[in-house]
Amino acid sequence: MTVEVQHPLNNVDIAAVGALVTAIQEDPAKAHTTWAAHVTWTGGFGSEAKVRAFAPVPSDEPTALGGGDSAPNPVEQLLSALGNCLAVGYAANATVAGIRLDRLTIDLKGDIDLHVFLGLREGHAGFDTITATVRLDSPAPRADVEALHAKVIASSPVGHTLGAAVPVRVDLA
Amino acid sequence: MTVEVQHPLNNVDIAAVGALVTAIQEDPAKAHTTWAAHVTWTGGFGSEAKVRAFAPVPSDEPTALGGGDSAPNPVEQLLSALGNCLAVGYAANATVAGIRLDRLTIDLKGDIDLHVFLGLREGHAGFDTITATVRLDSPAPRADVEALHAKVIASSPVGHTLGAAVPVRVDLA
Repeated sequence: MTVEVQHPLNNVDIAAVGALVTAIQEDPAKAHTTWAAHVTWTGGFGSEAKVRAFAPVPSDEPTALGGGDSAPNPVEQLLSALGNCLAVGYAANATVAGIRLDRLTIDLKGDIDLHVFLGLREGHAGFDTITATVRLDSPAPRADVEALHAKVIASSPVGHTLGAAVPVRVDLA
Repeated sequence: MTVEVQHPLNNVDIAAVGALVTAIQEDPAKAHTTWAAHVTWTGGFGSEAKVRAFAPVPSDEPTALGGGDSAPNPVEQLLSALGNCLAVGYAANATVAGIRLDRLTIDLKGDIDLHVFLGLREGHAGFDTITATVRLDSPAPRADVEALHAKVIASSPVGHTLGAAVPVRVDLA
């Protein structure tokens, strides 16, 4: 008995995605989604982020940066979010295309010059570039995998948020 | 006995930050930092992100998007990363300025039009705008808090990564 007989392809609930697509085609306003997170500072460089009903996720900085080193830091969380978003993209688009994924890993890295964060210079405090290397095992032909890759790049919410200049407004209440 | 007698201001290890600043002033190359995350797809729309030696952090999508709804999704993680980064910025800059923080929360939200993610349209798949509302309790004068706020906005690594168009390269190995 193969995995395919027991589970839907890639274990993706493609019917739910199809139902959402149909609902949006009938009422485009349903494509407008709002997402939220609530962060509480916990002292030092520690904080935690609460999303919906999930347990708060902790954040901290490495000791060299003055933190308690108890959790991934915010820029590592940003890279994680990008990798997780790309993973959803591959799973969704592969399933729609009938491509089986046997394994998928994404290694992400990026460089930051700390001068601006530390107040030693004005300018860009963020990542200069971000790179992701995708390793994907699949019985599909390489050309199909490359077409899948192109679709994922063209439709990644986190990837596009990072790659474009998105207005970020931070208000002091 | 006050909190200040028992703990450093805001519980921030400002000596560690100062040592890093001194080290970078002596050798600017030390400001160049590289950060990484490693994402593994776990089936369906689930994945987990591994950072350094920390336990993997899970990711999933809501049921309506075809996921198992077991964890915050990537765009919520992105908002969380921004909030956590701003929290570090407030804690660091407040401590340097001698401002005591009694409480700090940051509520983040952003809108995404799902058309591009779902392959129904080409264009920008990411957040259109992101807003963060900062609530900060401190005995400091409002003008000092506003100056603190300006410093944080000017130096946030995640904020600047989102607000600028950062080159994102995703390679298929």
